[in-house]
Amino acid sequence: MPLMTPEQYEESIRSLKLEVYMFGRRVSDPTGDPMIRPSLNAVAKTYELAMQPEYQEIMTARSHLNRKRINRFTHIHQSTEDLVKKSKMGRLLGQQTGCCFQRCVGMDALNALSIVTYNIDQKKNTDYNKRFRRYLEYVQERDLVCDGAMTDPKGDRSVPPHRQSDPDAFLRIVSENDNGIVVRGAKAHQTGAVNSHEIIVMPTIALRAEDQDYAVSFALPSNTPGVIYIIGRQSCDTRKLEGGAIDVGNPLFGGHEALVVFDDVTVPWERVFMFREYEFAGQLVEFFAAYHRQSYACKVGVGDVLIGAAHLISEYNGTAAASHIKDKLIEMTHLNETLYCGCIACASEGGPEPSGTYCVEKLLANVHKQNVTRFPYEIARLAQDIAGGLMVTLPSEADFKSPPTQKWLEKYFQANSKVPTQDRVRVLRLIENLTLGAAAVGYLTESMHGAGSPQAQRIMIARRSNADEKKAAAKKLCGIEKYDKSQGGATL
Amino acid sequence: MPLMTPEQYEESIRSLKLEVYMFGRRVSDPTGDPMIRPSLNAVAKTYELAMQPEYQEIMTARSHLNRKRINRFTHIHQSTEDLVKKSKMGRLLGQQTGCCFQRCVGMDALNALSIVTYNIDQKKNTDYNKRFRRYLEYVQERDLVCDGAMTDPKGDRSVPPHRQSDPDAFLRIVSENDNGIVVRGAKAHQTGAVNSHEIIVMPTIALRAEDQDYAVSFALPSNTPGVIYIIGRQSCDTRKLEGGAIDVGNPLFGGHEALVVFDDVTVPWERVFMFREYEFAGQLVEFFAAYHRQSYACKVGVGDVLIGAAHLISEYNGTAAASHIKDKLIEMTHLNETLYCGCIACASEGGPEPSGTYCVEKLLANVHKQNVTRFPYEIARLAQDIAGGLMVTLPSEADFKSPPTQKWLEKYFQANSKVPTQDRVRVLRLIENLTLGAAAVGYLTESMHGAGSPQAQRIMIARRSNADEKKAAAKKLCGIEKYDKSQGGATL
Amino acid sequence: MPLMTPEQYEESIRSLKLEVYMFGRRVSDPTGDPMIRPSLNAVAKTYELAMQPEYQEIMTARSHLNRKRINRFTHIHQSTEDLVKKSKMGRLLGQQTGCCFQRCVGMDALNALSIVTYNIDQKKNTDYNKRFRRYLEYVQERDLVCDGAMTDPKGDRSVPPHRQSDPDAFLRIVSENDNGIVVRGAKAHQTGAVNSHEIIVMPTIALRAEDQDYAVSFALPSNTPGVIYIIGRQSCDTRKLEGGAIDVGNPLFGGHEALVVFDDVTVPWERVFMFREYEFAGQLVEFFAAYHRQSYACKVGVGDVLIGAAHLISEYNGTAAASHIKDKLIEMTHLNETLYCGCIACASEGGPEPSGTYCVEKLLANVHKQNVTRFPYEIARLAQDIAGGLMVTLPSEADFKSPPTQKWLEKYFQANSKVPTQDRVRVLRLIENLTLGAAAVGYLTESMHGAGSPQAQRIMIARRSNADEKKAAAKKLCGIEKYDKSQGGATL
Amino acid sequence: MPLMTPEQYEESIRSLKLEVYMFGRRVSDPTGDPMIRPSLNAVAKTYELAMQPEYQEIMTARSHLNRKRINRFTHIHQSTEDLVKKSKMGRLLGQQTGCCFQRCVGMDALNALSIVTYNIDQKKNTDYNKRFRRYLEYVQERDLVCDGAMTDPKGDRSVPPHRQSDPDAFLRIVSENDNGIVVRGAKAHQTGAVNSHEIIVMPTIALRAEDQDYAVSFALPSNTPGVIYIIGRQSCDTRKLEGGAIDVGNPLFGGHEALVVFDDVTVPWERVFMFREYEFAGQLVEFFAAYHRQSYACKVGVGDVLIGAAHLISEYNGTAAASHIKDKLIEMTHLNETLYCGCIACASEGGPEPSGTYCVEKLLANVHKQNVTRFPYEIARLAQDIAGGLMVTLPSEADFKSPPTQKWLEKYFQANSKVPTQDRVRVLRLIENLTLGAAAVGYLTESMHGAGSPQAQRIMIARRSNADEKKAAAKKLCGIEKYDKSQGGATL
Repeated sequence: MPLMTPEQYEESIRSLKLEVYMFGRRVSDPTGDPMIRPSLNAVAKTYELAMQPEYQEIMTARSHLNRKRINRFTHIHQSTEDLVKKSKMGRLLGQQTGCCFQRCVGMDALNALSIVTYNIDQKKNTDYNKRFRRYLEYVQERDLVCDGAMTDPKGDRSVPPHRQSDPDAFLRIVSENDNGIVVRGAKAHQTGAVNSHEIIVMPTIALRAEDQDYAVSFALPSNTPGVIYIIGRQSCDTRKLEGGAIDVGNPLFGGHEALVVFDDVTVPWERVFMFREYEFAGQLVEFFAAYHRQSYACKVGVGDVLIGAAHLISEYNGTAAASHIKDKLIEMTHLNETLYCGCIACASEGGPEPSGTYCVEKLLANVHKQNVTRFPYEIARLAQDIAGGLMVTLPSEADFKSPPTQKWLEKYFQANSKVPTQDRVRVLRLIENLTLGAAAVGYLTESMHGAGSPQAQRIMIARRSNADEKKAAAKKLCGIEKYDKSQGGATL
Repeated sequence: MPLMTPEQYEESIRSLKLEVYMFGRRVSDPTGDPMIRPSLNAVAKTYELAMQPEYQEIMTARSHLNRKRINRFTHIHQSTEDLVKKSKMGRLLGQQTGCCFQRCVGMDALNALSIVTYNIDQKKNTDYNKRFRRYLEYVQERDLVCDGAMTDPKGDRSVPPHRQSDPDAFLRIVSENDNGIVVRGAKAHQTGAVNSHEIIVMPTIALRAEDQDYAVSFALPSNTPGVIYIIGRQSCDTRKLEGGAIDVGNPLFGGHEALVVFDDVTVPWERVFMFREYEFAGQLVEFFAAYHRQSYACKVGVGDVLIGAAHLISEYNGTAAASHIKDKLIEMTHLNETLYCGCIACASEGGPEPSGTYCVEKLLANVHKQNVTRFPYEIARLAQDIAGGLMVTLPSEADFKSPPTQKWLEKYFQANSKVPTQDRVRVLRLIENLTLGAAAVGYLTESMHGAGSPQAQRIMIARRSNADEKKAAAKKLCGIEKYDKSQGGATL
Repeated sequence: MPLMTPEQYEESIRSLKLEVYMFGRRVSDPTGDPMIRPSLNAVAKTYELAMQPEYQEIMTARSHLNRKRINRFTHIHQSTEDLVKKSKMGRLLGQQTGCCFQRCVGMDALNALSIVTYNIDQKKNTDYNKRFRRYLEYVQERDLVCDGAMTDPKGDRSVPPHRQSDPDAFLRIVSENDNGIVVRGAKAHQTGAVNSHEIIVMPTIALRAEDQDYAVSFALPSNTPGVIYIIGRQSCDTRKLEGGAIDVGNPLFGGHEALVVFDDVTVPWERVFMFREYEFAGQLVEFFAAYHRQSYACKVGVGDVLIGAAHLISEYNGTAAASHIKDKLIEMTHLNETLYCGCIACASEGGPEPSGTYCVEKLLANVHKQNVTRFPYEIARLAQDIAGGLMVTLPSEADFKSPPTQKWLEKYFQANSKVPTQDRVRVLRLIENLTLGAAAVGYLTESMHGAGSPQAQRIMIARRSNADEKKAAAKKLCGIEKYDKSQGGATL
Repeated sequence: MPLMTPEQYEESIRSLKLEVYMFGRRVSDPTGDPMIRPSLNAVAKTYELAMQPEYQEIMTARSHLNRKRINRFTHIHQSTEDLVKKSKMGRLLGQQTGCCFQRCVGMDALNALSIVTYNIDQKKNTDYNKRFRRYLEYVQERDLVCDGAMTDPKGDRSVPPHRQSDPDAFLRIVSENDNGIVVRGAKAHQTGAVNSHEIIVMPTIALRAEDQDYAVSFALPSNTPGVIYIIGRQSCDTRKLEGGAIDVGNPLFGGHEALVVFDDVTVPWERVFMFREYEFAGQLVEFFAAYHRQSYACKVGVGDVLIGAAHLISEYNGTAAASHIKDKLIEMTHLNETLYCGCIACASEGGPEPSGTYCVEKLLANVHKQNVTRFPYEIARLAQDIAGGLMVTLPSEADFKSPPTQKWLEKYFQANSKVPTQDRVRVLRLIENLTLGAAAVGYLTESMHGAGSPQAQRIMIARRSNADEKKAAAKKLCGIEKYDKSQGGATL
C-alpha cells in the first residue's frame, strides 16, 4: 500500500538536504530546526491520520489509475463525493493541527493539471496528459508531498511579464534543448516548501502571445540543484527558540512560507506539462484557484480550535454563564459553520470536466473564499473579547517558573478555583497564537491572501454571476418584458 | 398522472368557498379578489412549472408510495438529492415569482409528520404513520396545496399554555368522541392559507404533561365549517386596487398571510396524527423548523430578481460603469450566493431518519436561516443605494398618464436615452416593491421571523455546536491534555 | 417678534394657491388634502416649538442682522454653538414628528449662500451678498419656509449639462433682460416643496465655462407663475385616505417630495445670487452639501422614536426581560448615539468662513452622513427583529372594528394582559411605518440619498483625508524618513 | 515653569530603581532595557511635544491651582475646551508614536479623584479634596507621570471581594495606624507602570458595606518598598532584542503592561483619598471609566499611522490606482474619523461637576469606546488586505543583509521600481507591527479591553439611554397617548 508512516515521511524529507536559508544563515537540517519542525509535524499529521482506521474514509481514496488505496492528498477527484470529502479532510486537519498543514496546494495543482493537460492535448495534439498521468502515478506510489507553486513576485503590478524591467519578475523559460528546459525566476509565499518532495510550477496569470515564455508548467524534485529556499518569518516565531512550550501557544504545530528561487534550473521534458501554450495559462490559474479556494475548508477546523479555546477560557475565567459570552460563542459558531456551508456547497455542486476529473462549482468556491477573507477576523475579534485583556499582558513562561515572581503570578492569575492557573495561561497563549501570533499568519492573513486576494474572488464572482438571467427575471416581473399568457394559467 | 394544471388548481380553490374576511368585510370569491389574486398566481406557478419538461426534474418526483410522478411539493424526501432539489426548486420559484409562493410550508409539514408519526408509533404502539401515509396518498393523488399551520398566538410569552389567562392562546383539544376530536384556537401568520386545500395543524412549542391538551396534530380540508380566515394587510397592499400595473411593482405575483381561527372544529380520527403525546411535540417542532429553515432557499431566488433589477436600474440610470456600482452588485451577488451555499449544504449533508425520510442537517439548516435574517436586509440596502432616490419620489402612474403632468414626467425622468422612461419607472417600482412594498414583507420581515425568529436559530446553533469536541481539540493543542506520542510520529 | 404661530403658518401656505398635481389631478387646497396635510403638520411643528419657552434656546436665535429673535431655521450660524444647536434642533424635531420636517434644506441653502455670495463678491466685485442679506432679512422678518432646490434631473449621467440631448436636464438660464432672468428646467426630490413660501435654487454640480448657463442661483416665491409641483408617492401613502388612524402608524406627521418644474419662469435681478459665475458652482454645492449632511441629525431623533417603539413592543409582547432583546435595544441605541456623535462633532469642530458665517467641519460632516446611509437600516432591521412577524400580518383597522372579526382579533392578538390589544397594534403599525411605510422613505431611502448619495460622501472623505500627513507619520515611525534626534530626547 | 525635558524625565525614572521582573529575572535598569526602552520613549514624547511651541496649545494648560503652565497630562479640566483638547492631544500623540504613550491613565485618575474627593467631603465632612489638591500641586509642580491603577485580578468573577477564597484577589486595607494604612493586593494590566513616578490606586467595582475594606484610594511613589512590577510580554516582543530595526516595525516606540504587586505597602494618611467610603467606589469607577473611555482618542492617531502605512504600501506595491484599493482606504479613513467624532462629541458635550471639574458626557464616552472595540479591527483587516501576503512571509532583516540571500531578496521583492525594496519592507513590517505585532496589543486587544471590556460599555449605554423619553415620543406619535391639540396648531 503506497502510504508512508509519519516517521518515513520525516526521514524522506531529511534525506533531501534542501538548500534552506533563515535568519541570515543556511539551515543544516530543516527537519530538526525548532523553528521549522512544527510545520513538519503538521504535514506529518496528514500521514498519521491516513493510517488510522477511523479516518480512512476521509483521508484516503482509491486511485483512479490503479485502484490502490492512496492518501487523498495525491488523489484526482472522481466524484462530488470526493470533493466533499476533501472539504471534510481540510476541516479535520485544521482541528487536529490548529494551523496550515501545507499539503492542499499540491493536491490542487495535481487536479488542475489533470484537467488542463487534457484540454491542451485536445486542442494542440500534444501528449501532456500522458506525461502528467505518469508523473501522478509516481507521486501516488511514493505518497509524496507536492508544493504547488503559482505566485510569482510580479514586480511592477501595472505591466505584463514581458514589459517588466526585470524579466525574471515572473518565472520564465530561459532556454530549451533535447533533454528539457531551463527556467529562471522565483515563487513567493510557498507554503510548506521545505517540507515537500516535489515542486509543481504553474503560471500565475492569464497570458497573451507576447508572454509565451512565461507559459510554463512543470514538476521537479524539491532538491533539484539551483532551487533555493529562503524562509519567511512569522509573528512571534522566535518563541519556538525560547525552550518553553507554553508561550508558543501551539507548541507542536505550525506552518511556514518560503521564497523559492529557481536559479537557471533544468527540467526534463517528461516533467513539462505546459510549454508556451499561453492560451491555457488563464485556464490553469482558474482551475487551480477554484480548487484552492475550496481548500480554505481548513480554516473551519482552525476556527473550531479557536471556538473551543474561547469556550475554555470563558469557563476558566468564570464568565461562561454570562448571556453576552454565550451569545458571542454562538456568533463565532454561526460564522464558522457558514464557512463550512461554502466549502461543502461548492463541492457537492461540482461536476466533471472533459478529462473526467471532478471540479468544484467555481462561483460558489469563490464565494466561499471571499467569506474566508472576512469571518476569521471577526471570529478572532470575538475570541479576544471573550479572552480578556490578560491575553496580552501575561508575563513570560520564565516568570511563571522563577522564584521571585512565581508565587505572585500563581496567586493573582488564579480565577476559577478549580482550574490550575497554568491551564488558564495555556489557553490564553493559544488564543494569542491564533489571533496575533504565528498561527494568526495562517488563520488571518493567509485567509485574506492565500489562493488569491479578495479582489480576485470578486472579479470571478462578477464573471460567473449570470447577470443576464437575473435581469430577464426582473424585466418579466415588472412588465418590461410582457408576461406570456400562453405559458400558463396565471393572468395579469 | 396526478398533476393539476394551473386552471384546474384555480377552479379547485374557487369551489372551496372559504370564509374569508378582509378590510372589514367578507370576501365573496378570493380567487377573483384583486388583493388576493396575485398570491394565487404565485401558487399556480408551482403547478405551471411542474408541467414544463425543462423543469420536470426539479419540480416533480416519483412518490415513494406508488412511484407515480407527483409534484415535489407533495413528496417525502427519499435522498439527499431530493433535499438538494427542494432547495433548487425554492430558488427557481423565487426567481419566477419574486415573492413567497406559499407551498413549502405544507411540504415541510408532511415531511416532518412522516418522521414523527413513525417515531410515536415506535414508542407508543400507535398507528399514526399508517393514517398519515393514507392521508399523504390522498394529497399526492389530488396534487393538493397544504397549509402547514404551526404558529399559535401565544398570549403571554412568559407562561406555558396551561397557565395562560385565555386557554385558547394555544390551539387545543376541547373534547373527543367516537368520530373524532373538537379543537379550538387559532394559528397566526398563515402564509397562503386561502390558497390551500388542506390545513395541517401542529403544536408550536415543546410541551410537558400539564400541557397535553395542546399536543395535537391533524389535517383537515380548508373549508371545514368553523374555520375562519382573516387576511393580514401588507405594505402598499391597496396599490393592487388602483387599477394600474406599474405602481404595484410586481403586478402579477404576491403573497398573503392570514389569521386562521378554529371555532370548535371537528376533526375525524383518521386525520389525527398526534393526540396528547406531548413528549413528541418538541420533536415535531424541531423537524418542521429544520425543513422550513431550509425552505428559505426561496429568498435566494427573490434575491436574484432584486439583483437583476439593480443591474437594470444601473444601466437605465447610466451608472453601470461606475466602479462603486459594480462593486455593490458583486457584494449583493456574494451575499445571495452565500445564502445559496447554506441551503445546498444543509441538504447535501442531510441523512435518513428511522422512518426512511431524509432530513436536512439541522445545524446547517439553522445557520442558513440565521443568515437569511441578515443578508436580504443588506442586499435591499444596496439595491436602494444603486436605485437612487427617485425610487421613493416618483409620482403615481396616474400622473404619468395625465395630460398636464405627463409631458413633464417623460421629459424630466428620462435618463439613458435608449431606455423608455416608463421602463425606468417599472424597475424602480419593482425595487420599491421588494425593499419597502408588499414583497418586502416576504423578502425582509418574513425572512426575519418565518420558520422561527433569529433567536430560535441561535438556540439551536448553541445546542448543536458540539462544543465538547472543540474544547478537546483546543486542550490538546495547548498542552492541557497531553499529546499522546504513541498516536503518531510527531513529537513535542 | 418675527415668529409665526402654526395657525398663521398654515393660513399663509393656503393663501399661496400653488399649482400642485397628484394622482393624475390638480390638488385644489394642499393644506386640506389628507395625503399632504401630515407633512404640513410636521413643518408647523417648527413654528409651534419655537413659541414654547422650554425650546426657545434651541429653536430660536438672535438675527445677526438686527438682533431680533428669529426662528433658527432662518438664522445664519454665528458660532460653533449655533451649529451644535442646529444639530440638537434636528434631533428634537425628529423625536417630535417621527419624520422629515422639511425646513432644514432652506436653512442650509441660506447659510451656503451667505458664504458664497460673499466669496463671489470678493473675487468679482459683484454685489450678490448685499442682495442676499436683503433677501435674508425679508425671510427672517416673515418667518418663511424656504425650499432649498439643488437636485437637477440630470438626464444622462455620463455627460455634462451642455452635452445633454435635452438641454433642460439641468435647470438653466434661458434669457435675461433689464428686469431679470428667465429660467427653465426642474428640480427633483424637493422635500416639503408645497409647504414652502420660497424656493431657493442652486446648481447641482461643479461647472466649467461651457456650462455657464447652468451657473445660476436665485430665490423666488413658491407661487410664481410657471412653477408647477408634481407630488411623489410614498410607500403606503394611501392609508391616509382610508379614514382611520391606526394603520397609518404615525397619523399626524409625514413628509412629501415633489418634482418642481420651472416652465420659463422670470426671476427679478434682486433675487439673483449667482449668474454665470461657474467657478463658484462647485463651492456652493460643497457648502450646501456639508451643511445638509449635518442636517441628518434629524434621523437621530427619528431613531429615538423607533427605539422607543421597540422598547414598547418588547414590553407589550412580554419579551422585554430576554437578554437578547435587551442587547438588541442597546445596539440600536449605540448606533443611534454614534450618529449623534457625528452631527455634534462636525458642528463643534466647525469654524468661520470669510463672510463670518460659521460652517461645519466638512470631513466630519461627510463622515456623519456616510454613517446615516448605514445605521438606520440596521436599527430598522433590529426593530423588526424585536417587533415580531405580526408587524406585517396584522389585519386592517377595519377588521378590528368589524363585528364578525373584532372578537377574534381582540382575543388572539392579546399578549401582555395589562396592555390593550389596540395599543400593541398601534406600536406595530408605527414600526411598520418607520421601517416599511411612508416614514421609511425618510428614515431609510432619504437617509441613503438625501444630501448626496453615499459615493458623494466617499469622494469628499478621500479629498479631505489628509493622506500626506498620515503617510509622513508612517514613514517616520518605520524609519523611511529618519527620526531627527535633535527634535527631542528620545533616541533610536 | 514646571515642565521637564525628555532627558530630565528619563533621568528621573532611572533614579527610581524600581523592582522590576521580566523573562524570569530582575531588570537592573528599565530605562536602558531594549524591551522596555521604547515604552519610555513614548512617554518621553509627552514631554518633548509640550516644549514645542506649535503644540503648546494642545499639550499644555494653565493650572487652575496657580495659573502656571503645566503639562496637560497633569491638568484638571476646567472647560469643554479642555476636554476637546485632551482628545486632540491623544490623537496627536498616537500619530507621533504609533502606540500607547501611557500617560492618560494618570490624568484620568487625577480628574476622577478631583470630583469624587469633593463629593465624599460634601456628604461625609471629610477633607479628602484638600489632601488631593495638595497632592495635585505636587504632581503638577514636578511634571510627574502617574499610573492610574484600577484593575484588580478579581479571582472568581461570580463572587464579590469579601467572598473570594483569596481575600487579596482585590486590593484591600490590611491595617491602619496613626501614620497611615497598610494595603495588600495587586493591580493587573498596568500600562506604563515602570515609566511612572507615582501610582494612584482606585477600587475596580462598585462596593457594598461588606466590602468596605476594599473601598480605598491613595497615591504613592512608584518606588515605595513592597511595590513589585512584573512585565507582561507582547506579541513579537523579542524582536527588539535582535539588534536590527526593520523587523520591529516601529523601532522607537512601544508600550508595556505590568502586574503591580502591593506586598503590605504602607501609605501615609495625606496620600489617602478614600478610606472605607464604599458608597463612593462605584462613582469613582464610573468617572474614571468615562474619562478613560474618552482617552481612546489615541487610537485615532494610531489609526492615522496605519492608514498612512496602507497608503504607502499601495504606492510601493503599485496598486494605488486600483478602485478597490482607493475604496478600502476611504473606508479605513471613514471608520477612523467616526471614532474621532465620538471622542470629540463626548468632550464638547461635557459639563461641570459640583467640584468644578469638567467631565465628558458619559453616554457618548461609552458609545465612543464601544466603537473603539470594533473599528480598529476592521481598519487592521483592511490594512492587511491592502498590504498583500508578503507582510507575513517576508524573510528576516538578517536575510536581507546576508550575502547568499540578499541578492535574491532585493531582486524578487522589488515592486514599484522607484521605491527601494527596503522601504517596502519597512512599511510592511510597520503594518505587521500594528496588526499582529507588539503594537497590535495596544491597537487591537487594548482597544477591546482597556477602560473596560465591551460589555461594560453596553451596561452603561443601557443605563444612560433614557428609554422613557423615547417610549413617550413613540406613544404620542402612534396615538397611545393622545396628542394634545391645545399645545399647538397641528390637528389630527
